[in-house]
Amino acid sequence: MPVPSPVLYPAFNVIRLSHVELAVKDLAASRAFYVDLLGLQVSHEDAEAIYLRAMEERGHHCVILRKADAPCVNVLGFKVFAEADLDAAHKFFADQGLPVAWVERPFMGRTLRTADPHGIPLEFYAKMDRLPPIHQQYALYHGVKPLRIDHFNCFSPDVDASVAFYNSFGFRVTEYTEDEGSKKLWAAWMHRKGGVHDMAFTNGRGPRLHHLAFWVPTPLNIIDLLDLMATTGYVANIERGPGRHGISNAFFLYILDPDGHRTEIYCSDYQTVDPDLEPIHWDLKDPQRQTLWGAPAPKSWFENGSAFANVAARDAVLTAQPIIAP
Amino acid sequence: MPVPSPVLYPAFNVIRLSHVELAVKDLAASRAFYVDLLGLQVSHEDAEAIYLRAMEERGHHCVILRKADAPCVNVLGFKVFAEADLDAAHKFFADQGLPVAWVERPFMGRTLRTADPHGIPLEFYAKMDRLPPIHQQYALYHGVKPLRIDHFNCFSPDVDASVAFYNSFGFRVTEYTEDEGSKKLWAAWMHRKGGVHDMAFTNGRGPRLHHLAFWVPTPLNIIDLLDLMATTGYVANIERGPGRHGISNAFFLYILDPDGHRTEIYCSDYQTVDPDLEPIHWDLKDPQRQTLWGAPAPKSWFENGSAFANVAARDAVLTAQPIIAP
Amino acid sequence: MPVPSPVLYPAFNVIRLSHVELAVKDLAASRAFYVDLLGLQVSHEDAEAIYLRAMEERGHHCVILRKADAPCVNVLGFKVFAEADLDAAHKFFADQGLPVAWVERPFMGRTLRTADPHGIPLEFYAKMDRLPPIHQQYALYHGVKPLRIDHFNCFSPDVDASVAFYNSFGFRVTEYTEDEGSKKLWAAWMHRKGGVHDMAFTNGRGPRLHHLAFWVPTPLNIIDLLDLMATTGYVANIERGPGRHGISNAFFLYILDPDGHRTEIYCSDYQTVDPDLEPIHWDLKDPQRQTLWGAPAPKSWFENGSAFANVAARDAVLTAQPIIAP
Amino acid sequence: MPVPSPVLYPAFNVIRLSHVELAVKDLAASRAFYVDLLGLQVSHEDAEAIYLRAMEERGHHCVILRKADAPCVNVLGFKVFAEADLDAAHKFFADQGLPVAWVERPFMGRTLRTADPHGIPLEFYAKMDRLPPIHQQYALYHGVKPLRIDHFNCFSPDVDASVAFYNSFGFRVTEYTEDEGSKKLWAAWMHRKGGVHDMAFTNGRGPRLHHLAFWVPTPLNIIDLLDLMATTGYVANIERGPGRHGISNAFFLYILDPDGHRTEIYCSDYQTVDPDLEPIHWDLKDPQRQTLWGAPAPKSWFENGSAFANVAARDAVLTAQPIIAP
Repeated sequence: MPVPSPVLYPAFNVIRLSHVELAVKDLAASRAFYVDLLGLQVSHEDAEAIYLRAMEERGHHCVILRKADAPCVNVLGFKVFAEADLDAAHKFFADQGLPVAWVERPFMGRTLRTADPHGIPLEFYAKMDRLPPIHQQYALYHGVKPLRIDHFNCFSPDVDASVAFYNSFGFRVTEYTEDEGSKKLWAAWMHRKGGVHDMAFTNGRGPRLHHLAFWVPTPLNIIDLLDLMATTGYVANIERGPGRHGISNAFFLYILDPDGHRTEIYCSDYQTVDPDLEPIHWDLKDPQRQTLWGAPAPKSWFENGSAFANVAARDAVLTAQPIIAP
Repeated sequence: MPVPSPVLYPAFNVIRLSHVELAVKDLAASRAFYVDLLGLQVSHEDAEAIYLRAMEERGHHCVILRKADAPCVNVLGFKVFAEADLDAAHKFFADQGLPVAWVERPFMGRTLRTADPHGIPLEFYAKMDRLPPIHQQYALYHGVKPLRIDHFNCFSPDVDASVAFYNSFGFRVTEYTEDEGSKKLWAAWMHRKGGVHDMAFTNGRGPRLHHLAFWVPTPLNIIDLLDLMATTGYVANIERGPGRHGISNAFFLYILDPDGHRTEIYCSDYQTVDPDLEPIHWDLKDPQRQTLWGAPAPKSWFENGSAFANVAARDAVLTAQPIIAP
Repeated sequence: MPVPSPVLYPAFNVIRLSHVELAVKDLAASRAFYVDLLGLQVSHEDAEAIYLRAMEERGHHCVILRKADAPCVNVLGFKVFAEADLDAAHKFFADQGLPVAWVERPFMGRTLRTADPHGIPLEFYAKMDRLPPIHQQYALYHGVKPLRIDHFNCFSPDVDASVAFYNSFGFRVTEYTEDEGSKKLWAAWMHRKGGVHDMAFTNGRGPRLHHLAFWVPTPLNIIDLLDLMATTGYVANIERGPGRHGISNAFFLYILDPDGHRTEIYCSDYQTVDPDLEPIHWDLKDPQRQTLWGAPAPKSWFENGSAFANVAARDAVLTAQPIIAP
Repeated sequence: MPVPSPVLYPAFNVIRLSHVELAVKDLAASRAFYVDLLGLQVSHEDAEAIYLRAMEERGHHCVILRKADAPCVNVLGFKVFAEADLDAAHKFFADQGLPVAWVERPFMGRTLRTADPHGIPLEFYAKMDRLPPIHQQYALYHGVKPLRIDHFNCFSPDVDASVAFYNSFGFRVTEYTEDEGSKKLWAAWMHRKGGVHDMAFTNGRGPRLHHLAFWVPTPLNIIDLLDLMATTGYVANIERGPGRHGISNAFFLYILDPDGHRTEIYCSDYQTVDPDLEPIHWDLKDPQRQTLWGAPAPKSWFENGSAFANVAARDAVLTAQPIIAP
């Protein structure tokens, strides 16, 4: 089995994925998409950036939209358990020769900026401004009723290497696909917060962000969003779904924002807090791993992703196409 | 506009579509599909046939599965308001030179057997055995929780002719697609019972049955069925969906039985009892008429249908392919 | 059995219930309730009245809110099949010595104003202004996503008499409760449009309107409305529910508008177009007839109703309290 | 504020609540309730006991039904992170003079048996037999489709003391109600696994188990269960609901098993993994804390609970009745 054993006592304690900063060309168009259409709430906005949170979040933001000349992903953010974990993380990344810096970030406490071995820009923090609960202000709910950011999914040019690295600081694999011939990983889903994933990697030219995801209450909210997108000028932004993933068992929809950044709307995966949870193996040739109901994903879904700022992507080590590409 | 004016006082009063008799090769396999998987209830079964009803129906049957050497559709059944309507129907069809016969049918009263001008075998009746209500026996609900048969959809080689004929005895058009060049109808949806349709016609080699449909409570029941089919050996029987039709606004799924007969699982169309309800026109080039959310239907969905017993299909008068075929 | 045989060929053809005019004390407060909270769409508004329709309706209005010094119900409206039915209705009511008048009503064609034997003010029309479809303008959906007006329910001082009268012009009983001792009807549900009811009568001081009802897509829309009401200052306007009725099998919620007019939010009853549909009998002592799940209704629900304009209510002929009052 | 500060680095690491052993008088009746009605899966059964798991669980059991002469609760079980945590727990409880014993339990590894200061029997383990995943065997889903055990709720005679004790080994308070006069806790919800609670305490004669709870996919599954219970002889087992809790924001239903043990069916609370999550304070006089929609709970819900085996309950320190008792 290609999945490494979990590191149960990692050097520092990551609690969960936290936020993403997306570079976007037109703040107003992105605001229309994330706020008016999807239903995220604005925590702060100025001429350069808009900070958003989902309905049950009390941290200040899960998405930052930042005005830029060209779209890309500036950073993926993670919350650690305590300040001491930040220092331990600083040492952990520095010891491996990865770039480390303490950076100032609005609305956040001490923040460690670093990158993973493939260059994905990461930031870690323990404290972010806390906002009053709004999860019972039902008049604010609209769009798809996003409850919280759920996960990131990245193209990796070497999934085994990505998994080994995130595993080394405590991310645990819940499900994975391997190439039966080479016994190399094709894709893997890894978590910290007790769901199927905080971070997933899929074989492909990378590093690139494949998508971010929001958790919503039920599949009917996804159907409501589809109806809304289809009748408000966003039909071309619907890329794939709705459907049920074999992997994760989640009900899903993939949509594209005005810059092509992909968002998954996601619900109904399962609890994974047991440290002895056995990773589920999927055969690369099993079409139901992607869509339990059998429908193929479109070509764009396999190919397109968002570049990370100032990070060159390189070709993947596995070049075989997945059997189930359409 | 190519849609004929409704005949508000037709010669006889059809209440609703009622039932279909499907010729199937393997009664046990068909029973597994319609009873164990979909959740229809058995009203009667013997060595030759199985009679089924849906959960809120009190008529004896909405589907008859009849053992045969080759699959086809034996007849489409309709319920009329009263016995007098049967006599009026006999005269109506006979006057047009169409075949008429009074036939004996189990569990049904006096039954008129006839055919439409393209040869679709039809039967009309006023009285069918009535069964006790089971709609509140919730322990019986399973599968997709089918509540009632909703409609038939047929390929017609000449949709204008089909619509004119059914219109002449009171079916009213609710929505339609026309070919902008020839101003001929591509497809039309016609009702008697107050929903979007009891009967629809689509341009294509015919006459053939495109599908029958069952009404279910909510889209979540369709998602439940997909999960069940996907994990009980029926994944290849899922043909198209789930999705929202532009036409009818219904949430849909198309599945295939063991003989290839197509069933639509359907919910959430709208009430059409107003006699002055304006038919909704759809452009043949509008991809959202088929799927509001933009996803194309598979080729099989445009091409395959079930032959009617002893009826030769002929090519359609319109030969242009719909723009939105995949 | 106390239910009269249906009159299958009535003197005139009522298609469905159509609209209600409510006298309200504060148009702005009522607008906030019906438009902002429930999600009805404004067809017209001026200083004296607001006309509303639900999402799948194409007739101009289903509710008229009219400014008044004291709340009451001005009239219940019904749509007939054709103009000739209006003349037949005029004769029908006049022949029974009931008041008849042709009245001018905005947005409506020729309108017959009359009353039933207990004094309920009624109006009948064949033509109302038609509006473009909005059922696929999903950006307009909010609140409980009301799709269409579904029925009226009235207290009657003599349910047998009310049922006999409406039965005489074609309303058919679908379900009923009788007092086992006197064999008199306690309550009855009667329809024209093919659902469980357009009009129901319950024994009680009357005539008074017990409630009007809107059809919504699924029970989840009702849960959404409850969450919204509970957190926007309307928690005291929630009177009963959610629950499943034994009678009608519908999922329900009862709420009160600012003047105390009661609205039911309703979904998932069943199709009743068969003229030979057998009425379902319920025992007055069966608590599940009201709430299938067993929860009792509050006292207010049994007692309160809206007066009809200038109509004195009188005590009911049956005085026994229903067993299941809390 | 009466809520103690969280102990972020407790002496041992409890992952989650795990299981409960219920003493029941009639195994067959209890099996009918938990297996046939609710939809739990049997992992093992013999003449003395039945072991059950929910659909997404891979641990061997979450409920043990054990035949007994009188109903009670034998033990509440919790899973710890690793074997070392068991030893640390042994020391932790022994140091406080609480009973500790290593016990043999079928299907489980090394098991520590102990009790909390009020006498609630507890057991901790790190390893339980693991079973293959069944969460995608959709043919097995029925009843309410229980996905996992979610929490326990206990009457405590001294909620401050209970909260202080569980807080001391890492349980964190998410929401609480306090008595405004005495500033003592009336109730508190405490978690380890990242939801609103693994364990809650409510002021009342105790210790007694108020209820255990299962997580289900959506509110519609709860409605399905209500319909099923109401029509299969279990209507009297429905105690309270459905409704939305103010506290936890969950959609709920309370039902009683054949011995009177209470089960909550529960969904849609929120994620609580942030260690700096601020506990939400509710006023004892706010009726919406219990039911957001305003409906009161029945008297039985405030009074009845299940005794723990061989543990005498004592009166609560707070004797004022909650304002919102019916």
